[in-house]
Amino acid sequence: MTDHSRPARPARPVVLGQNQYGKAENRVVKITRDGATHHIRDLNVSVSLSGDMDEVHYSGSNASVLPTDTTKNTVYAFAQEHGIESAEQFGIHLARHFVTSQEPIHRARIRIEEYGWERIEHGGKGAHSFARTGRETRLAQITYDGTSWEVVSGLKDLVVLNSTDSEFWGYVKDRYTTLPEAYDRILATEVSARWRFGWADDERPAPDWETSYRETGRHLLAAFAETYSLSLQQTLYAMGSRIVEQRAEIDEVRLSLPNKHHFLVDLEPFGLKNPTEDGAVYYAADRPYGLIEATVLREGCEPRIPVDLSNL
Amino acid sequence: MTDHSRPARPARPVVLGQNQYGKAENRVVKITRDGATHHIRDLNVSVSLSGDMDEVHYSGSNASVLPTDTTKNTVYAFAQEHGIESAEQFGIHLARHFVTSQEPIHRARIRIEEYGWERIEHGGKGAHSFARTGRETRLAQITYDGTSWEVVSGLKDLVVLNSTDSEFWGYVKDRYTTLPEAYDRILATEVSARWRFGWADDERPAPDWETSYRETGRHLLAAFAETYSLSLQQTLYAMGSRIVEQRAEIDEVRLSLPNKHHFLVDLEPFGLKNPTEDGAVYYAADRPYGLIEATVLREGCEPRIPVDLSNL
Amino acid sequence: MTDHSRPARPARPVVLGQNQYGKAENRVVKITRDGATHHIRDLNVSVSLSGDMDEVHYSGSNASVLPTDTTKNTVYAFAQEHGIESAEQFGIHLARHFVTSQEPIHRARIRIEEYGWERIEHGGKGAHSFARTGRETRLAQITYDGTSWEVVSGLKDLVVLNSTDSEFWGYVKDRYTTLPEAYDRILATEVSARWRFGWADDERPAPDWETSYRETGRHLLAAFAETYSLSLQQTLYAMGSRIVEQRAEIDEVRLSLPNKHHFLVDLEPFGLKNPTEDGAVYYAADRPYGLIEATVLREGCEPRIPVDLSNL
Amino acid sequence: MTDHSRPARPARPVVLGQNQYGKAENRVVKITRDGATHHIRDLNVSVSLSGDMDEVHYSGSNASVLPTDTTKNTVYAFAQEHGIESAEQFGIHLARHFVTSQEPIHRARIRIEEYGWERIEHGGKGAHSFARTGRETRLAQITYDGTSWEVVSGLKDLVVLNSTDSEFWGYVKDRYTTLPEAYDRILATEVSARWRFGWADDERPAPDWETSYRETGRHLLAAFAETYSLSLQQTLYAMGSRIVEQRAEIDEVRLSLPNKHHFLVDLEPFGLKNPTEDGAVYYAADRPYGLIEATVLREGCEPRIPVDLSNL
Repeated sequence: MTDHSRPARPARPVVLGQNQYGKAENRVVKITRDGATHHIRDLNVSVSLSGDMDEVHYSGSNASVLPTDTTKNTVYAFAQEHGIESAEQFGIHLARHFVTSQEPIHRARIRIEEYGWERIEHGGKGAHSFARTGRETRLAQITYDGTSWEVVSGLKDLVVLNSTDSEFWGYVKDRYTTLPEAYDRILATEVSARWRFGWADDERPAPDWETSYRETGRHLLAAFAETYSLSLQQTLYAMGSRIVEQRAEIDEVRLSLPNKHHFLVDLEPFGLKNPTEDGAVYYAADRPYGLIEATVLREGCEPRIPVDLSNL
Repeated sequence: MTDHSRPARPARPVVLGQNQYGKAENRVVKITRDGATHHIRDLNVSVSLSGDMDEVHYSGSNASVLPTDTTKNTVYAFAQEHGIESAEQFGIHLARHFVTSQEPIHRARIRIEEYGWERIEHGGKGAHSFARTGRETRLAQITYDGTSWEVVSGLKDLVVLNSTDSEFWGYVKDRYTTLPEAYDRILATEVSARWRFGWADDERPAPDWETSYRETGRHLLAAFAETYSLSLQQTLYAMGSRIVEQRAEIDEVRLSLPNKHHFLVDLEPFGLKNPTEDGAVYYAADRPYGLIEATVLREGCEPRIPVDLSNL
Repeated sequence: MTDHSRPARPARPVVLGQNQYGKAENRVVKITRDGATHHIRDLNVSVSLSGDMDEVHYSGSNASVLPTDTTKNTVYAFAQEHGIESAEQFGIHLARHFVTSQEPIHRARIRIEEYGWERIEHGGKGAHSFARTGRETRLAQITYDGTSWEVVSGLKDLVVLNSTDSEFWGYVKDRYTTLPEAYDRILATEVSARWRFGWADDERPAPDWETSYRETGRHLLAAFAETYSLSLQQTLYAMGSRIVEQRAEIDEVRLSLPNKHHFLVDLEPFGLKNPTEDGAVYYAADRPYGLIEATVLREGCEPRIPVDLSNL
Repeated sequence: MTDHSRPARPARPVVLGQNQYGKAENRVVKITRDGATHHIRDLNVSVSLSGDMDEVHYSGSNASVLPTDTTKNTVYAFAQEHGIESAEQFGIHLARHFVTSQEPIHRARIRIEEYGWERIEHGGKGAHSFARTGRETRLAQITYDGTSWEVVSGLKDLVVLNSTDSEFWGYVKDRYTTLPEAYDRILATEVSARWRFGWADDERPAPDWETSYRETGRHLLAAFAETYSLSLQQTLYAMGSRIVEQRAEIDEVRLSLPNKHHFLVDLEPFGLKNPTEDGAVYYAADRPYGLIEATVLREGCEPRIPVDLSNL
């Protein structure tokens, strides 16, 4: 060990702002057995802690730092000690532990991705075989400051498409506008959604996280499918408002919807028609893409989900 | 246009070997309508042509080169003119066209990825709403040289897991061996599979491509689920041989199976047990990973699928 | 065109919050020629507009919507009309245009990624050959509300490593702590940084964006290299504070530093030493990873960069 | 341990073909110190072994299987015992070890990716700070069967661009051709190259791998930059033939060159010119892309590099 005389806090006009640290992307798989029938939960858990951490930034003193390696160990130990009832409940256990067990830690944020698995149906004897669904990734973020809770759930990677019932016309036209109006187009997007629960303190009972996730996802898809769309903004609002209306436990929804353009191919140069009425051929484009983002709120609630949705 | 005197073929001891060219990753989506019920096919089509192409390499003369842009146009036009009955049938149409319509082209290879969609179930009025499944990607490669066909189908990105019925012991131990034997472990892999059809000429009827794909995938999953595994090689062979045995139209199967390691976490330092019997917690590792690859053949058939499986 | 009676604004307790829309990831390459010497700028430009957009969400009326396709056209036209002096200057042109030319648009945010190219050095005649550097990606975000500007620049994808002069010890130990202290370790990270300029209004002259980017990057690297590190937090603070101290035009820096762990491999089971003193062999791990994030501010300045750094 | 009666080799018309196994993507970083000046080598090593492995496929008997975990340990131990002189030399040590130390192993193939680092130049005291270059990834594949060697080196991820001196015209036109001829276009590609050495046995001295890699890369870039191109095929051939002509140790080159299209944007609808002569604005497209692939050989040599270049 080298001897390092640590510098005192510098007398300079620089200030440390918001800071947090932890171990990201702890991949946890838990198998529970119900006789021959097994159950699987497959999580990716990220821990972020903040509190009295000025000194480690100024001098490198780790006296108030619980190592990120320890937060990793805690994730695995808690999966055994407490089980994984739901991503949200697991995050609540972890966040409470970090804030209550370590004096310098004033706030813990747990982010979780959960990957879905479905059973492989076959004529075999046991139910311990699974295929990863590969559809949406479930998300949960739990934040605790020792007093109140903020739980945001959501999903990403959900690609959906309506092959009709979408139009786009009547828009502003300026010098740079060349887009023709469309009266029957494909509407496709990759849904990234976050929704925030009203639940905030231990005095009230927490929502049933599993039911809430399942039902919220169902409303999201139904609103997408059932909306006759004159713009992707309209569809977005239909999705968000339906959740706020139907799910009393949710106060805020943020949606980020890339418009995955499907352009009708011009086949006239080859003497071919390409009618939308039937058998239409589209080119699915990668970039650029429209990007529509908005928050939908229960009246009287403050928005708290950031404008830019991060990975978790 | 600059005037370029083209160099004659160089008198040097260098030879042009295998060469091919074309347009890769043409994203084609086709919607067909059956009244209010729509159907979707979503393909990524890559064209590779070869033939009398020496001169373009030596001098840049494009006199025998059909532009890759034209091959792209052809893909979209054929999706309209011929429809997309199956990935394989669509590739057959395209390959035949390129070889028979252009003198200098002696061989065409069409590679296709197909993405699956499932209907969004809701109480709505019409069946034109879809969610991308995100599970396996279907693959097809069609090669034609003017005389005979080679069709290889397959899939990739299929992640499967058995939570028990897997062991690993009795292996060679040398100076560098530290691995403990395992008598109850998770076996997980991401299946990349290719299978080659016996069908090779227009005289014989082609297989029913859709049925073949569906059934082959079913056997693959069933063999994975039903094999009590003493090594991933054994599981691989069970998967490949079951396809050859059950599907008379298939002569060769190549499988590439990464061993997606799930390590039982050592919780003893925290005074916790972590028994495989129930509630076991695993760490899902990324890298490194075991990689098991093999070909399984119908007796008397020559292997033709390359040892390294490429993207398509 | 189907006739749609548009619903009036719903009388329900749901509120539309922050919303924005635009075309993302417009890939623009501009070549300027200085005789035989060419120059290249390679950008990925994303436009986000907001303003009086309630109606399009409620009813799908696009009467105040400039199509995202038009914003794409504008990006390409402006690259020709105004050139690309710097990412920041280009973004300022675009943001000003959208806000001042369209009544309903009250705010424009332009995000730009810029990819670096270096000249291919060879004995040839002209300087029009380039190789993409592949090192960091330059970032710029320009926001304008008709009155004041906010410019945030930055970089991502910059992987750096110190092979010594890093320790980690003296940390908190709890029930779940097993990590041994380290007195000579590798410190490696992939820098994601954003810095906000003090410049906010057209009255004052804007910074020299090119010089600022070059110098800020130089300070970032120098602070990483020169800091004898007792924790990654300390290194982070050294990087951020050096920028604030050395670059008067910058008021705020946000850094997100994943700790790319390099674990000294235990070779004792094979009778081998693996001393850090020389020739040490490390395992470079993927996941999980420590993640250290903090803001460093000029005294008296308010933080405005979001806690979660998004892609641009 | 469950007792499993192993099935005998099945009497069925199914044959095991080519098979191999090993541990893929072992990430090895080695730091050597030359006083205060440090050196870094950063490899990703994949091992594939084959030999008498029928039984493990048929019955799961691992009696001839060296665990993939052991091959991983060997990689790390050899990095300490033998050092990493070059990727090729390191692979030769490993391949020889596996084939000569284990009776059932008849062939070993080692694939290596190497990532480049450059020193961070600053006014500091020591030379132990590095930034990853992020440009090309170096590749090496070493195969040994106990008698002869096959060494293939190469690179990938090298993006290059000529902003002029590229044309495309005089091509075949059919019913589906709409592409206009081009007399001054951008030519850009992401080079994926493999080259095979003539060296094959221990009797002859091996090439100087480091010099060979450096010089081959230099010729590749120079040929790309110096070729006035009438087609990407011509440029490809110029690159491959230059290597074969200039590097006596290399017998075969395989190149896979995606044509990264840069389309001149049509600005006429906005009343703007967009001349290639100066200041031209291009749209850099993602998909689809032309793909040009070919092998160039020293006369009299047999091609051995596969038509599809795999990752390593």
